[in-house]
Amino acid sequence: MAEPRVTADMSMSLDGFIAGANARRGNPLGDGGERLHQWVYGLESWRERQGMSGGRANGDAEIVAEGFARLGAVVMGRRMFEEGEEPWGDEPPFHVSVFVLTHEMREPLVKKGGTTFVFVNDGIDNALKQARAAAGDKDVSIAGASTIQQFLQAGLLDELQIHLIPVLLGDGVRLFERVGDTELEITRVIESNGVVHLGFRVVKE
Amino acid sequence: MAEPRVTADMSMSLDGFIAGANARRGNPLGDGGERLHQWVYGLESWRERQGMSGGRANGDAEIVAEGFARLGAVVMGRRMFEEGEEPWGDEPPFHVSVFVLTHEMREPLVKKGGTTFVFVNDGIDNALKQARAAAGDKDVSIAGASTIQQFLQAGLLDELQIHLIPVLLGDGVRLFERVGDTELEITRVIESNGVVHLGFRVVKE
Repeated sequence: MAEPRVTADMSMSLDGFIAGANARRGNPLGDGGERLHQWVYGLESWRERQGMSGGRANGDAEIVAEGFARLGAVVMGRRMFEEGEEPWGDEPPFHVSVFVLTHEMREPLVKKGGTTFVFVNDGIDNALKQARAAAGDKDVSIAGASTIQQFLQAGLLDELQIHLIPVLLGDGVRLFERVGDTELEITRVIESNGVVHLGFRVVKE
Repeated sequence: MAEPRVTADMSMSLDGFIAGANARRGNPLGDGGERLHQWVYGLESWRERQGMSGGRANGDAEIVAEGFARLGAVVMGRRMFEEGEEPWGDEPPFHVSVFVLTHEMREPLVKKGGTTFVFVNDGIDNALKQARAAAGDKDVSIAGASTIQQFLQAGLLDELQIHLIPVLLGDGVRLFERVGDTELEITRVIESNGVVHLGFRVVKE
């Protein structure tokens, strides 16, 4: 079995955006940003995770299934939680513990299907420590651009998976903003149905 | 024979930079930017073009050789010309006509080995017209980030080749800045020696 890793998994446009212009509550993907995620919506493994049946079983679906199988816990920022809480509903698609970085003091929020939101008030190191304990021998996934940036800057990210979408959005939310100089190593490159799945390992000194 | 195309060919970091921070005259690749080009320096086809012998003959070298074989003319901005003129020397590595976008009125500058710099004062459409005529059945290559951005915005680019380098530079000169919404189609993906060569066709309405 592979060592548990701290990972991030994002769909990104060729010009580096993970959401289009005017991304905000009510328009979380921004203008045109839905094109970054269209590859995933029809996949069997993704639909199953959302409680839906049917969908395509192909190479893309395998890549998504592989990520779910390795997922042991999630760390995300307050804004992503606030935006997601309502649309995710009673049974959020995580099915693991989700550690939310926030200044708010709040009791854990237990949802159906194995998702519990745990609110962490003392920074990313402690959030990661708790997430690692919850994940056991599985991976901790870091969610959301600004949280990924914090983990990259702190040297806490082990792996990065980018689903590169052949579109230029021109404006929006960049995945890599204010990250320091970081060496990566390509672990795999898979082209499939108009998406390039790029795996990277973060090279640490 | 393939139709002549308007192309651009750039090495880019995963975070979208084609040069590092503090890029300027005397430091054209910026801090750390040399890592974006290291893959090319040792290649036989690249060295031959610079008048040097030896080097590696591999898949990367073939990709570079293919680009040279298709090259019929170049369009570049004034700044790239001014920065390059001295280091390129008496026999610049283009070996074709190079159309320089500038406000300066100036006679063509004929160099050894087939490179002639032609100064164009009336905009990108006319520069492209002249470059196409010079290229005949070969491609016109657009050089430099800001000139590529102008051609993308004007809908004049047909193809884009990105050599994606697994590094985050954190700061520098972005390839895609102020470009409009543009759909691309992946034409090929080749991983080779730590570089991902990505080919795209620009989808036009």
